[in-house]
Amino acid sequence: MPRICSDHTMTVQKCNILQGKKGLIFGALDERSLAWHVAKRCMECGADIVLTNTPQALQLGTLPNLAQQAGVPIVPCDATDINDIRHLLTQAQTLLGGSIDFVLHSVAQSLNLRRHRTYEKVNYDYFLKTLDISALSLHKILQAALDMNAISQGGSVVTLTYLASERYLYGYNDMADAKAMLESIVRQMGAIYGTAHGVRVNAISQSATNTKAGTQWDEQACFSRYVNDLSPLGAADADDCADLCVTLFSDFTRKVTMQTIYNDGGFAHTMLTGQLMSEFRNTIDN
Amino acid sequence: MPRICSDHTMTVQKCNILQGKKGLIFGALDERSLAWHVAKRCMECGADIVLTNTPQALQLGTLPNLAQQAGVPIVPCDATDINDIRHLLTQAQTLLGGSIDFVLHSVAQSLNLRRHRTYEKVNYDYFLKTLDISALSLHKILQAALDMNAISQGGSVVTLTYLASERYLYGYNDMADAKAMLESIVRQMGAIYGTAHGVRVNAISQSATNTKAGTQWDEQACFSRYVNDLSPLGAADADDCADLCVTLFSDFTRKVTMQTIYNDGGFAHTMLTGQLMSEFRNTIDN
Amino acid sequence: MPRICSDHTMTVQKCNILQGKKGLIFGALDERSLAWHVAKRCMECGADIVLTNTPQALQLGTLPNLAQQAGVPIVPCDATDINDIRHLLTQAQTLLGGSIDFVLHSVAQSLNLRRHRTYEKVNYDYFLKTLDISALSLHKILQAALDMNAISQGGSVVTLTYLASERYLYGYNDMADAKAMLESIVRQMGAIYGTAHGVRVNAISQSATNTKAGTQWDEQACFSRYVNDLSPLGAADADDCADLCVTLFSDFTRKVTMQTIYNDGGFAHTMLTGQLMSEFRNTIDN
Amino acid sequence: MPRICSDHTMTVQKCNILQGKKGLIFGALDERSLAWHVAKRCMECGADIVLTNTPQALQLGTLPNLAQQAGVPIVPCDATDINDIRHLLTQAQTLLGGSIDFVLHSVAQSLNLRRHRTYEKVNYDYFLKTLDISALSLHKILQAALDMNAISQGGSVVTLTYLASERYLYGYNDMADAKAMLESIVRQMGAIYGTAHGVRVNAISQSATNTKAGTQWDEQACFSRYVNDLSPLGAADADDCADLCVTLFSDFTRKVTMQTIYNDGGFAHTMLTGQLMSEFRNTIDN
Repeated sequence: MPRICSDHTMTVQKCNILQGKKGLIFGALDERSLAWHVAKRCMECGADIVLTNTPQALQLGTLPNLAQQAGVPIVPCDATDINDIRHLLTQAQTLLGGSIDFVLHSVAQSLNLRRHRTYEKVNYDYFLKTLDISALSLHKILQAALDMNAISQGGSVVTLTYLASERYLYGYNDMADAKAMLESIVRQMGAIYGTAHGVRVNAISQSATNTKAGTQWDEQACFSRYVNDLSPLGAADADDCADLCVTLFSDFTRKVTMQTIYNDGGFAHTMLTGQLMSEFRNTIDN
Repeated sequence: MPRICSDHTMTVQKCNILQGKKGLIFGALDERSLAWHVAKRCMECGADIVLTNTPQALQLGTLPNLAQQAGVPIVPCDATDINDIRHLLTQAQTLLGGSIDFVLHSVAQSLNLRRHRTYEKVNYDYFLKTLDISALSLHKILQAALDMNAISQGGSVVTLTYLASERYLYGYNDMADAKAMLESIVRQMGAIYGTAHGVRVNAISQSATNTKAGTQWDEQACFSRYVNDLSPLGAADADDCADLCVTLFSDFTRKVTMQTIYNDGGFAHTMLTGQLMSEFRNTIDN
Repeated sequence: MPRICSDHTMTVQKCNILQGKKGLIFGALDERSLAWHVAKRCMECGADIVLTNTPQALQLGTLPNLAQQAGVPIVPCDATDINDIRHLLTQAQTLLGGSIDFVLHSVAQSLNLRRHRTYEKVNYDYFLKTLDISALSLHKILQAALDMNAISQGGSVVTLTYLASERYLYGYNDMADAKAMLESIVRQMGAIYGTAHGVRVNAISQSATNTKAGTQWDEQACFSRYVNDLSPLGAADADDCADLCVTLFSDFTRKVTMQTIYNDGGFAHTMLTGQLMSEFRNTIDN
Repeated sequence: MPRICSDHTMTVQKCNILQGKKGLIFGALDERSLAWHVAKRCMECGADIVLTNTPQALQLGTLPNLAQQAGVPIVPCDATDINDIRHLLTQAQTLLGGSIDFVLHSVAQSLNLRRHRTYEKVNYDYFLKTLDISALSLHKILQAALDMNAISQGGSVVTLTYLASERYLYGYNDMADAKAMLESIVRQMGAIYGTAHGVRVNAISQSATNTKAGTQWDEQACFSRYVNDLSPLGAADADDCADLCVTLFSDFTRKVTMQTIYNDGGFAHTMLTGQLMSEFRNTIDN
């Protein structure tokens, strides 16, 4: 039972906070994707959107249908391919009628994770591919955008990361290293793009969520309960992620940059709660 | 010359993001105060506000005039006195017509700093007073509010801190220790109030700003340039602080809690920029 | 069952790493005290030692006997009283025959914790006393030492802290805020005493240990298991603490300063292990 | 003028703290290398050592001569090649007469840095190579060692990192991202190797030092002064690094793991000193 009953269509006002903004969203696969929730929420708040994902993801998932219903254009792009990215940035600006105000980078994949190679027995070709897809892709997008001057002065870029970048999580594998590197790219590109054009770059460190990507991991139910027990506000879901992204894309956060913001109900700053303690004590007593 | 020309009345939309919210703002002294900027911005975004400060501050500063012009009530309160706080919370709820949705705590004072006692020669009575005013006051407000159930389910509390809590800053004195303790209170009260009533508690670590409090420090101009040179987006000002507070008070950040968010143009995550390097090189060459 | 079988008298060589060093150790109460373990280990490694604690603690505990057996002098001192401290520093230098090379500060007490006042219902006089004893005492010792030039050039100061300063721990109470403040004092005094006389100041963030202080907390056995499960090397004990202190007091760490070093078997950098996961899963399945 | 006059042959005792330990040292090139200083110091403290570097580095540098004079064996190895590593681990154990007690990983290279490709215009093949050499190599060494059970129970692994992994440093380029990833590998391998065999893994975040690698960067003199001004104890040099490594390889730090320890005279925890402020003020006044 969630501690906060958050019916977002009720409590969050349909406000015009992104009125006139133009956004590019990477990584939506289906209606459970964080990126799709973000896209929807941005539109509700007044933004125009272009969606993108790899050709394979567009075939596997249901994004084309969702986008069509919402009247949003999709431009296919492999975010590890600099030429694809340049083409995408050109197309997106044409479709949006001007330079891009905000970007969501929600791109991650580990073949080691998928093929059950544990962290002490990884395949190194897969490892480099994990880094290329999950971290370097953000660098490539921003290197191309900076070269093409594709992001507006004062624009905002957000990527999604996870606390396993800072603390060991059993089973998270090479993705943890990729996220650590991703957060470093956020700082470096935030400094360079910030100095050049006032563009912010931040990462959201989101609670583990029940998306298609999330459920690849075994023991999801048990882990979710652990996370929820250690989050004083309960774990953040995809709607919470979308809401926070909206604030970071808006003009209300123009000096917030180069950082990792936790959207996690307090999990990262909690060592132990009474709730977990009492559940764990039962284990030992039994 | 600021790198970002931020005319906030132009770029930030007058949106209704705080429509219907009730807020209590501690610590505004005059029109340069961060707290006053926050109060104004919250009202522009639809909130109703009650202001408070100590009786002495209300005499010394210009807040009574500002509040009168804006039609906002003031309730005097010494934030180190638990009885005063309880009275304030009762009054504020009466004036606002219900429980409080958000609180800004902008309260800090160091007699050691003011009377030029350096950190290795502090007066310990002053030191305890610094802690009581600048850190414990937040605890007292939240202990009283929790006991009186004065903050709405899902409400939001923000306090202002500074990076000197994490890294030594020449001359910042016992205020640094108070800020470190303040951020700890944020985490602890965030966990407890979050579990009890879904109330968030966060700190904003703001760029040093040119307020009345800020200018007590010697060498302010030189320090401001140093800070600005090391902030890829330039330093954040009082308007930037107000904007970020608005997002943290809104329903868009309902799972963000127990953390310190930097509103600093990137300063905290920057070791050295080309700009500072070239200025500093001139020093050595001359 | 500890994962590492550490018989320290076997594995750690009796080396002369502190030969000729003079040390002052605050806070030993009985043979389980961290401070007593540190004192013993320093003597084994060649140091001369003076012990100190409050007159009350000397009556309550068994330190006088232990010290007599070991042939170590004790000087009573209330570490919250600047005059007592000055007297102690004079006496210690006389007894040791010169200025002090290293100091251990192991001083902490919370009346709120002891009298079962929970964090949201603290007594504020107790709270200020917690801060004075557990954090300000370090400042007072170093302010006096700096004024009297009582610590040798290149000397080393260590205090003991705990991770609850950074992350909420159910039941740790106002001690968490005191530890956060203590770590800030470490940074500030480290900067000032370092610049003045090359003196290092560091904190060790130690695993929760089974001392007299530690056992005041309820549910100690369950908590110990939780901590051990989340520590890849198992929790650090008092001998481990003593060993680490020896390295920090030695000349091998002369540029290590102003930081918190974790002596915790990896706990602080671990989110979840397979071990805890499987135990926790049993809870839910039952 | 350095604030601490540290003649290490005088002040640090020749103690037997590593008596009987067997060590493997990656990355020494010539007598200025950090890795060479570490190797020498470990031998002075009683350890037996095997040195390794790539065949090219052995040709370019002066290590073969140094090793011959010291009577230490060298085994060539490309630390990005898992087969080379396995061969090295076999050879090293034969030469040392048993399993390895400690490992130093001092391996880093960026072709982007070397060929003056700035961070916003990197070559991505070079970038992946930077990651492979500077970060993945540590993973490969430990994956092979774990599989071969080549490191003793309770052994210790240290790698060298730099604060640019956490904060933007102008010109440090893709090496910053590699260091961030390296520190993540430290945490993950520390957890896994720790649980399996009690092996510690840590990173030392060392002051920028005047090695052959260090001097590739322009403006070295100015940067060194900046760093020194912001380090209350002055910057750490190669001897300081060697000393700290000795403590981490010894049995005195058996529960210290998965962390980044700063050997930097306080730089990482300093925002601004009076020294830098006064120099910087001259810049502006002129």
